[in-house]
Amino acid sequence: MIAIAVLGHGVVGSGVAEVLEKSRGNICRKAGADLYIKKILDLREFPELSYSDKFTKDFNEILTDPEIQVVAEVMGGLNPAYDYVSAALSAGKSVVTSNKELVAAKGAELLALAKRMNRNFLFEASVGGGIPIIRPLHQCLAANEIDEIVGILNGTTNFILTKMIREGMSFTDALKMAQELGYAEKDPTADVEGQDTCRKICILASLAFGSHVYPESVQTQGITKITLEDVRYAESAGKVIKLLGQTRRVNGSCYVMVGPALIGRDSPLAGVEDVFNGILVRGDATGDVVFVGKGAGKLPTASAVVSDIIDCVKHKDTIATLHWSDAQSKVSDIRREVTARYIRCKGKGADSIAWQIFGSPTFLQRPDKPVDEFAFIAPAMTGFDFAQKLDALVGKGVEILGDIQVWEA
Amino acid sequence: MIAIAVLGHGVVGSGVAEVLEKSRGNICRKAGADLYIKKILDLREFPELSYSDKFTKDFNEILTDPEIQVVAEVMGGLNPAYDYVSAALSAGKSVVTSNKELVAAKGAELLALAKRMNRNFLFEASVGGGIPIIRPLHQCLAANEIDEIVGILNGTTNFILTKMIREGMSFTDALKMAQELGYAEKDPTADVEGQDTCRKICILASLAFGSHVYPESVQTQGITKITLEDVRYAESAGKVIKLLGQTRRVNGSCYVMVGPALIGRDSPLAGVEDVFNGILVRGDATGDVVFVGKGAGKLPTASAVVSDIIDCVKHKDTIATLHWSDAQSKVSDIRREVTARYIRCKGKGADSIAWQIFGSPTFLQRPDKPVDEFAFIAPAMTGFDFAQKLDALVGKGVEILGDIQVWEA
Repeated sequence: MIAIAVLGHGVVGSGVAEVLEKSRGNICRKAGADLYIKKILDLREFPELSYSDKFTKDFNEILTDPEIQVVAEVMGGLNPAYDYVSAALSAGKSVVTSNKELVAAKGAELLALAKRMNRNFLFEASVGGGIPIIRPLHQCLAANEIDEIVGILNGTTNFILTKMIREGMSFTDALKMAQELGYAEKDPTADVEGQDTCRKICILASLAFGSHVYPESVQTQGITKITLEDVRYAESAGKVIKLLGQTRRVNGSCYVMVGPALIGRDSPLAGVEDVFNGILVRGDATGDVVFVGKGAGKLPTASAVVSDIIDCVKHKDTIATLHWSDAQSKVSDIRREVTARYIRCKGKGADSIAWQIFGSPTFLQRPDKPVDEFAFIAPAMTGFDFAQKLDALVGKGVEILGDIQVWEA
Repeated sequence: MIAIAVLGHGVVGSGVAEVLEKSRGNICRKAGADLYIKKILDLREFPELSYSDKFTKDFNEILTDPEIQVVAEVMGGLNPAYDYVSAALSAGKSVVTSNKELVAAKGAELLALAKRMNRNFLFEASVGGGIPIIRPLHQCLAANEIDEIVGILNGTTNFILTKMIREGMSFTDALKMAQELGYAEKDPTADVEGQDTCRKICILASLAFGSHVYPESVQTQGITKITLEDVRYAESAGKVIKLLGQTRRVNGSCYVMVGPALIGRDSPLAGVEDVFNGILVRGDATGDVVFVGKGAGKLPTASAVVSDIIDCVKHKDTIATLHWSDAQSKVSDIRREVTARYIRCKGKGADSIAWQIFGSPTFLQRPDKPVDEFAFIAPAMTGFDFAQKLDALVGKGVEILGDIQVWEA
């Protein structure tokens, strides 16, 4: 009998209990051991639950229980999750977590601690919810150098953008709908401002390139400035707007960035809609591999947590391939990147000014376009060059209404 | 130092050597050991290669070499691969293979043998080439009951269908082009008649449902009867024709089938084009997860083989979750399945006869449709009911030109 503790009984925590209950036979068979939840940490009480006797408000009860070999941290947030996870690893327990904030901020440190203790710190559920991505990255694609990862990593913003694209709903209305459906929090900042995507791409970049990428070092932009006008201009160019987390190996460092981007309808990520996530991994041997599935939600996320629990039970010792160093990764200046960009601007004669400045931009159309509004795709250039040209445009009295990267697969 | 042997130096075998050479540092770090190719079995000679001294024509040199701990079988075909793999496992070596024919025919037996010897028999490369699918199925999705798997599992036929759909090329011309590009063999039977897809869906079904599904028990149809007319009628209904391998859990048995199907353009598999493969896995907790990537080719397949080699080096003992029993799986009679179907037929008044027999079929259009040709989608019914109605149609003098399943996600 292997005892498990679950920290937190929110959406994911209750899902972990549900999955372990529902598929217990199957799970124990795969783990090669009889495993059960012994303790659940939560400050709230759940007297109506059949397993209400398992709850405790005292983390020490879990920490000092030698029977508990695996701790599942699903409370979210940096504190006290970080303290609990450190303490559990230091006490010789393996830890699995769905907490992307924790992994993005403290991943290298906790992986090193787990290694010192010869235990595991696993976090399949922290990126992509129920989509297998962490394990495929370090195991299945182990024979590859990963060159690039690009993902739609946040279901809430993808839902909002899908409503804007498919139904012409405004950002505000789509956000409200997402909140009503339980896809967005009351305070949606972390989702719509891109921080959630940023944490996830940092985790993937750290794993792919071997040293820690901290969220603070990543230029992050959300989708709050995206308008229906942008959506329609993009459509006329055969493109859709998606919030992307991007990372790519560049000489001696890595490029990491979070922001909205126009992507071609033919791209494998364009069809990833609603609350689905999609992650494109480009390996030197395997080429492009794309993973698509529900990136959040109670049962998908819980099933990823439980798969990690099974792995901890099977492999008590550290799984060596899941590792990156705590040397801070050098993140390249994104202004060095060469990309095409979409511009929406306003001003009498702005089109001929843009024509002069940008060489040969591709002008876009939309229904009911005001005569003094222009949108175009500027040819690929570095961010440095682009900023100069944008300054020149503004210098000529043109007002910039929108500025979005164009991503080409 | 851990010595590896490679059986076969064809496309995949030379790729394994290339990947191991190119990324050796990375691979050894991930494996936690220094590994190298000691012997390569091939009847041909390759004097121009830098590693020409590693070749042998005598399998016994490999079998009796105690330093060789892992054997990569990439020769393909059932014999002598089966004999070699059995002998290597019996000698206490782990074996990895890309050979779907071998795994589909002898998987349960070889897994059991590996287990008895406490070694591994791994075959990530046998399905989906470079797409991680075997390991995600038994590890990442371990907390799920897998309910259904549907996949585009053969790149050659997907290339041919894509050319027919996108460019209006005939089957014959598209096949010729695939052969010229090296995507199809001189004898393309195993691809175009669906046997390759059948082997792969059998492997996935065996792993998902726990007992061996033999190719002989699966109704298999290829794409040789698909015409441009069918492609165009499908298009008018917003659908594309894909060759699918399908399996689904049904009470006490499983449904397994290989054949072309009309799928909606909105389906996550519809956008999987050219030589790409796509696999949809439906788990009870995780919902739909889709994996897309190159299903074949030298380096993608080789990288999957090498990832298995790494796993064998890391885990000398049997990996317990990769297993199914040799009890033959009960495959349900596919005529019990309820599906909609596309029919193309010919005959004066065939439309009103079809209308009478099928209740309310949806008639389709195509450019230049002859007046006596009709295509329609018959509403969902069992295969038994459908066969009766089709007989009735033929009984009224209608000629059946095409009959394809409609797959709804």
